[in-house]
Amino acid sequence: MTRDEARARDAADPLRGYRDRFALPDGVLYLDGNSLGPLPRDAAPALADMAGRQWGERLIRSWNEGWIDAPQRIGGKIAALIGADPDEVIVADSTSVNLFKLLVAALRHDPARHTIVSETGNFPTDLHIAEGAVGCVAGARLNAVARGAISAAIDGDTAVVLLTHVHYKTAERFDMASWTAAAHAAGALTLWDLSHSVGAVPVDLNAAGADLAVGCGYKYLNGGPGAPAFLFVARRLQERLASPLSGWMGHAAPFDFADAYQPASGMKRWLAGTPSMLAMAGLEAGVDLWRAVDQQAVATKSAALFDQFAAIGARLNLECASPANPERRGSHISFRHPQAYALCQALIARGVIGDFRDPDILRFGLTPLYLGFEDVWCAGSILADILTSGAFRDPAFAQRNAVT
Amino acid sequence: MTRDEARARDAADPLRGYRDRFALPDGVLYLDGNSLGPLPRDAAPALADMAGRQWGERLIRSWNEGWIDAPQRIGGKIAALIGADPDEVIVADSTSVNLFKLLVAALRHDPARHTIVSETGNFPTDLHIAEGAVGCVAGARLNAVARGAISAAIDGDTAVVLLTHVHYKTAERFDMASWTAAAHAAGALTLWDLSHSVGAVPVDLNAAGADLAVGCGYKYLNGGPGAPAFLFVARRLQERLASPLSGWMGHAAPFDFADAYQPASGMKRWLAGTPSMLAMAGLEAGVDLWRAVDQQAVATKSAALFDQFAAIGARLNLECASPANPERRGSHISFRHPQAYALCQALIARGVIGDFRDPDILRFGLTPLYLGFEDVWCAGSILADILTSGAFRDPAFAQRNAVT
Repeated sequence: MTRDEARARDAADPLRGYRDRFALPDGVLYLDGNSLGPLPRDAAPALADMAGRQWGERLIRSWNEGWIDAPQRIGGKIAALIGADPDEVIVADSTSVNLFKLLVAALRHDPARHTIVSETGNFPTDLHIAEGAVGCVAGARLNAVARGAISAAIDGDTAVVLLTHVHYKTAERFDMASWTAAAHAAGALTLWDLSHSVGAVPVDLNAAGADLAVGCGYKYLNGGPGAPAFLFVARRLQERLASPLSGWMGHAAPFDFADAYQPASGMKRWLAGTPSMLAMAGLEAGVDLWRAVDQQAVATKSAALFDQFAAIGARLNLECASPANPERRGSHISFRHPQAYALCQALIARGVIGDFRDPDILRFGLTPLYLGFEDVWCAGSILADILTSGAFRDPAFAQRNAVT
Repeated sequence: MTRDEARARDAADPLRGYRDRFALPDGVLYLDGNSLGPLPRDAAPALADMAGRQWGERLIRSWNEGWIDAPQRIGGKIAALIGADPDEVIVADSTSVNLFKLLVAALRHDPARHTIVSETGNFPTDLHIAEGAVGCVAGARLNAVARGAISAAIDGDTAVVLLTHVHYKTAERFDMASWTAAAHAAGALTLWDLSHSVGAVPVDLNAAGADLAVGCGYKYLNGGPGAPAFLFVARRLQERLASPLSGWMGHAAPFDFADAYQPASGMKRWLAGTPSMLAMAGLEAGVDLWRAVDQQAVATKSAALFDQFAAIGARLNLECASPANPERRGSHISFRHPQAYALCQALIARGVIGDFRDPDILRFGLTPLYLGFEDVWCAGSILADILTSGAFRDPAFAQRNAVT
């Protein structure tokens, strides 16, 4: 694709209007929206209103003027993006904390089942938290196996199958419906981590018959650094599972100040402590931006951006680690390269922000709302220049940052 | 105290300058800073910088430019307010979630001990979370007893004594040193909830020999609605306790993306998921305001404001539920009244914001940084007017809000 062809694609892009809704800095090609989504223009005034008016002027009264319902309200908006009903999703805590709640609850759901089945190389916090969860339920264990062995690992002892829908390194995507059916056939629940899926690929939890899910607010949802996460519990399970993190905000009547814990009905029981309203304001601005977006247009453009970037990689003899079939991947593209870290740093020095994942993955988030074909063309030509010139071999680029 | 006398006290108040550092709305006497502290003027530009520059312009690079260290940096600043060393405090999650982490860790600390001892009528989330924590450790139990029976309940089976330093209703304050000594004499750990203490009364965790503590960021620290909370672990215990919420941010090397969990050394192991930086920006602005404050001046003024309000209550024949001895209470005053809810609503309608705690407590936060003697004089005269006129008997004031 030539630069002119890329410009023509941008001009014809039905999502083109969304680009102006983000405050993208000059001189940066941002291909890291799958690690931290950029600032929606509406977020700044929303935060100013949250601080100045809601906190500053209305003070404690704001709890009765929209705050107390924020976790359910924003959850309902996210539900529309993942094929769930509004009363099946709530915003709370972090993805890690929500994984813990749901894994412990799932392990307690059927006393005859004791195992969490998951994948080695899953996003680390999923496995770390699974370790923590099995430590909290007598007899529980974690069985993490390679992807090819998951199917055989699901058996009559499996309480829950914990899978990340789109892999954070390779972008490989599980077929949610068929894996859910396989888990159900063995009597197990499924817990899907949607962190690299929501806002990236079509997700239909209820069509797939999914049981449980969690996901991140700060990637494709553009909810701000460390934005609150969400969790989904299928309605049929809502009264049968309870949170081990039995905090007051999940109590049936938090302002009765009773000594004994009584879980709220519905999704409110998954709340623990008091949620940050500053964080909620950022997340809601990001989520609101998605409300009118045509998800099919996002999927189509994501596939086209991927094809464009894959062709650039092929021309540069880079090994693509992501699946060729768009139905089997997320919305990022990864290449393997022995100097992936230095390459990533050299790109950043030229204004192309992607990221590195240990040990050899160079990863680019393809975010159709604000990324265009000309952006990918420019990133590709800078990547070509760095590879051909050998600029990435500068020792300065090998020096690791705290966060890679 | 006459209004003129109150004005004279304000004019001589060494903390008077702090009032201008808060954006207090006109027409409001805010006596609810112990439920939600008001907006520090510095918070609005701090949030604008966090959103516009750090998130918007620097994007993912900000993780290497101050974000990754924020939990420890802000924790270190809070440490100075509670008699801890900077490396003994970290900011993370909510008070509820932090209670869970520390209670489970404390229950696992000595396999011969199985009991959490706490107080009936403790702040609800402390007891609710303790219920959740004992559900996660085989053989563990919660023994919540009335204050007078706590001492006798601490025995050789006690793993941890969970006490809230200042009671959220009555403002009664435990003597931290003597209760810690009593717990230690029985071989138990102590876990102090400082939510109504930090920024309110002098706290010296290390002088008291305390083991563990948690606290809230959104009350006297003025960190914003639902601000992140903090936790303290005495250095001698730091390598012997680990979090059941074993998320990636608490890993020894989170960006190695290893499958197996390995807790970080020091306080970082108490992090779970990715913290919200918008929430952190609000909290840091609140905490920074405290850095130059003379804590002894705060205690002295708190006691004087209490005496002034107690005298008003006595004149109005209100039953004071808070201790007369300033060493034995926090920085709020509570009165019992059968129509406490309606009284609270009638006060709010006149611009005096205090709060109601079920069933009969009318509570006023006495926050020396921005509350003056004339404020208390005015609140008292409005309270007198409402009581004498019977205005609080209007049925509209009996109608409950979602959050009381």
